[in-house]
Amino acid sequence: MFKRKDLLGIQDLQREEISTILDTAESFKEILTRPIKKVPTLRGKTVINFFHEPSTRTRISFEIAAKRLSADTINISPSTSSLIKGESLKDMAKTLEAMNPDIIVIRHSAPGAPHLLAQVAKFSVINAGDGAHEHPTQALVDLLTIKEHKGKIKGLQIAIVGDILHSRVARSNIFALGKMGAKVRLIGPPTLIPPFIEQLDVSIEHSLEKGIRDCDVIMLLRIQLERQKRVFFPSIREYARLYGLTPDKLIKAQEGVLIMHPGPINRGVEIDPRVADAPFSLILDQVTNGIAVRMALLYLILGGKR
Amino acid sequence: MFKRKDLLGIQDLQREEISTILDTAESFKEILTRPIKKVPTLRGKTVINFFHEPSTRTRISFEIAAKRLSADTINISPSTSSLIKGESLKDMAKTLEAMNPDIIVIRHSAPGAPHLLAQVAKFSVINAGDGAHEHPTQALVDLLTIKEHKGKIKGLQIAIVGDILHSRVARSNIFALGKMGAKVRLIGPPTLIPPFIEQLDVSIEHSLEKGIRDCDVIMLLRIQLERQKRVFFPSIREYARLYGLTPDKLIKAQEGVLIMHPGPINRGVEIDPRVADAPFSLILDQVTNGIAVRMALLYLILGGKR
Amino acid sequence: MFKRKDLLGIQDLQREEISTILDTAESFKEILTRPIKKVPTLRGKTVINFFHEPSTRTRISFEIAAKRLSADTINISPSTSSLIKGESLKDMAKTLEAMNPDIIVIRHSAPGAPHLLAQVAKFSVINAGDGAHEHPTQALVDLLTIKEHKGKIKGLQIAIVGDILHSRVARSNIFALGKMGAKVRLIGPPTLIPPFIEQLDVSIEHSLEKGIRDCDVIMLLRIQLERQKRVFFPSIREYARLYGLTPDKLIKAQEGVLIMHPGPINRGVEIDPRVADAPFSLILDQVTNGIAVRMALLYLILGGKR
Repeated sequence: MFKRKDLLGIQDLQREEISTILDTAESFKEILTRPIKKVPTLRGKTVINFFHEPSTRTRISFEIAAKRLSADTINISPSTSSLIKGESLKDMAKTLEAMNPDIIVIRHSAPGAPHLLAQVAKFSVINAGDGAHEHPTQALVDLLTIKEHKGKIKGLQIAIVGDILHSRVARSNIFALGKMGAKVRLIGPPTLIPPFIEQLDVSIEHSLEKGIRDCDVIMLLRIQLERQKRVFFPSIREYARLYGLTPDKLIKAQEGVLIMHPGPINRGVEIDPRVADAPFSLILDQVTNGIAVRMALLYLILGGKR
Repeated sequence: MFKRKDLLGIQDLQREEISTILDTAESFKEILTRPIKKVPTLRGKTVINFFHEPSTRTRISFEIAAKRLSADTINISPSTSSLIKGESLKDMAKTLEAMNPDIIVIRHSAPGAPHLLAQVAKFSVINAGDGAHEHPTQALVDLLTIKEHKGKIKGLQIAIVGDILHSRVARSNIFALGKMGAKVRLIGPPTLIPPFIEQLDVSIEHSLEKGIRDCDVIMLLRIQLERQKRVFFPSIREYARLYGLTPDKLIKAQEGVLIMHPGPINRGVEIDPRVADAPFSLILDQVTNGIAVRMALLYLILGGKR
Repeated sequence: MFKRKDLLGIQDLQREEISTILDTAESFKEILTRPIKKVPTLRGKTVINFFHEPSTRTRISFEIAAKRLSADTINISPSTSSLIKGESLKDMAKTLEAMNPDIIVIRHSAPGAPHLLAQVAKFSVINAGDGAHEHPTQALVDLLTIKEHKGKIKGLQIAIVGDILHSRVARSNIFALGKMGAKVRLIGPPTLIPPFIEQLDVSIEHSLEKGIRDCDVIMLLRIQLERQKRVFFPSIREYARLYGLTPDKLIKAQEGVLIMHPGPINRGVEIDPRVADAPFSLILDQVTNGIAVRMALLYLILGGKR
């Protein structure tokens, strides 16, 4: 069972809670194949999507998830939310709380912003990405996608490739995969691997070709130039040459390897188009599972309150 | 009873109409405490939130109010609405009218913009703030909040403190409180009190400490630097020193005094955090009442049309 | 009957398909006069309005149309969609497809963008304007408006006046009117008439006064300075003097002539206010018909899928 008020990060979750979320998401996938993809479960509930950082796909994913459960949705976009600057996040939380919404889905550039919101207000909070800290719903989506295609998560060897340092997706996945019993290997240039990260029980490898050899799944990360304050590699071309996943490099991996990417992909940078569009690429399965996982979370969190 | 097509300002309203709005809002507050906070009253009605000036809290308050009554809501934001510049407000009104919406909620930097809309089009118009002219729904929210906490409005002494000159909230409250029989005292530096305002039957005081002595309620206004074309006081620090409400100054007020603020608050400028967070501060009650008052207005205006 | 997955342009449509759309739109107009202007027809369907180019009126028209059919609507605005730049349109289409929406309504500055979307994804696509290529829903709105007021389209003489070169409205109307048996005359300065356009079976006239003499309908186009890369006429004033429709020039037209304009109008440029506001101006009828035509299209396209 799931009895939390909030979903703030994977780090706090128990293995059983993760299993409950994944099982619930699987049952919601059936609804999504119906001609009328809507159930009245959350009628009268209000979900506020507060995206302080720009995002199209995650916001739409949450908005569709909420609408398929018949909840009312309200969007606060970066352009309008920046207009309430001057107001502290805590004051904003208390103001929103006074309007009595049921859930705030928040994306924010400041790590810990969702936690602050959850602490000061009685509405539920779902973290849709906070700085370079966590992006828990993406990691849950990734677990569901692996489980669907491999039948299990435990015991698998998973590579996470790229800019680990700035990636909340990587952090959440390191926690999530670890809790579910998978082995995680981080692959990237030394400048993009955070120091002391071995303490999270991961292995580290700087050569892509060596690192992927025995992996069941390779998760590629998006190179987000906009999030880097200084230069961590000589050039995009250099990065692509060393860490872009091409068929040439993939040939070193074992049979049945699966490719994942949280999107949006940079074709020709971290992923070669022939890899992105291959049958063993699960990139679009991840998008589809995004809606099911977010429906499950809205349902479990608001169900627990009823 | 309430038979108006529009809510453009408090100045036009009769005392009885104000009472009807407040009574209706009180009855809607009950709905807001239910697990399913939604009634089918305005199903099939279309509410357009046309915010030409940025606003997050008022727009969300109207959007939640409309959705809890099951109306369909459409947002026109500053960024998109600026794109129809070149089109006159009158042409835009006629265009919207041809789409047959039921209510347009409009915030606009030009005083009188809602009145123009209401004059040329057959849809209903609610003024959500027009320049420095009126912000009638905020004043109604404030009346409801005072009434709930003091049991009455008539005979109370209310102080309005700060930038009266640029404040549509102050103007609407001066009208509203006057009509309901309260006595209004304006407190602020001479540069921020409009000339001849005494004609609206208010008293004026330049010292905060003197002015609040016998008040039942102190309404603080937000210092909106962005709305000032020239400098009306030496510095923020100077303003805070003289007119910021601190516990030190508040000690001069009588027992049972209540603090209000339309938000968002500038902590440490017009209000000390210890005052903002005190049990006698009604700032968050005002936000909660905002939804009830806006539900009442949507209901009364569209009900009158049925 | 209408069995298409998409509405990409008028050029592809058969005459019978156009008639079906117009007949369906007429039947939806009745719903729009009811007190509850909503039917459950598309409950559970998801319509994404993806406006890569700014637009207020077309987006609102589609959003109202979808909501009156009880569909769920999701907006992607220019400001948020620009944030997924770096992602190719094709990747974005596949990503949206993985979320399983029913229809994407797309406005895009690139001609052919809707066609690409329709080709790569299994959701339905409605073209809400692609570059200077087509704006098919506007042309259908114009046909419906003419048919309502003239009782027929066949055999009528229609003038389209202004910047033909940059106008997707003109292109779609040339196809639409031609298919329905009307005669089309293009009127404008030589610099704004595309070369070889006579091949589309239209006549060309450079003098407004001569050109409108025997016309049943005069469609004026908006002068969109923002879309011109170089100067096509000496000045706005010069354009207004030669091609602005004034009562003086209109006196040369035959009795019963009707005036149309896709909006928003530039008063005093392409249209004199006395003409815009005359009883024979159908500009606002076009706006009203916009919702009925878009409801019809959503209904026919999604109905065919059921």
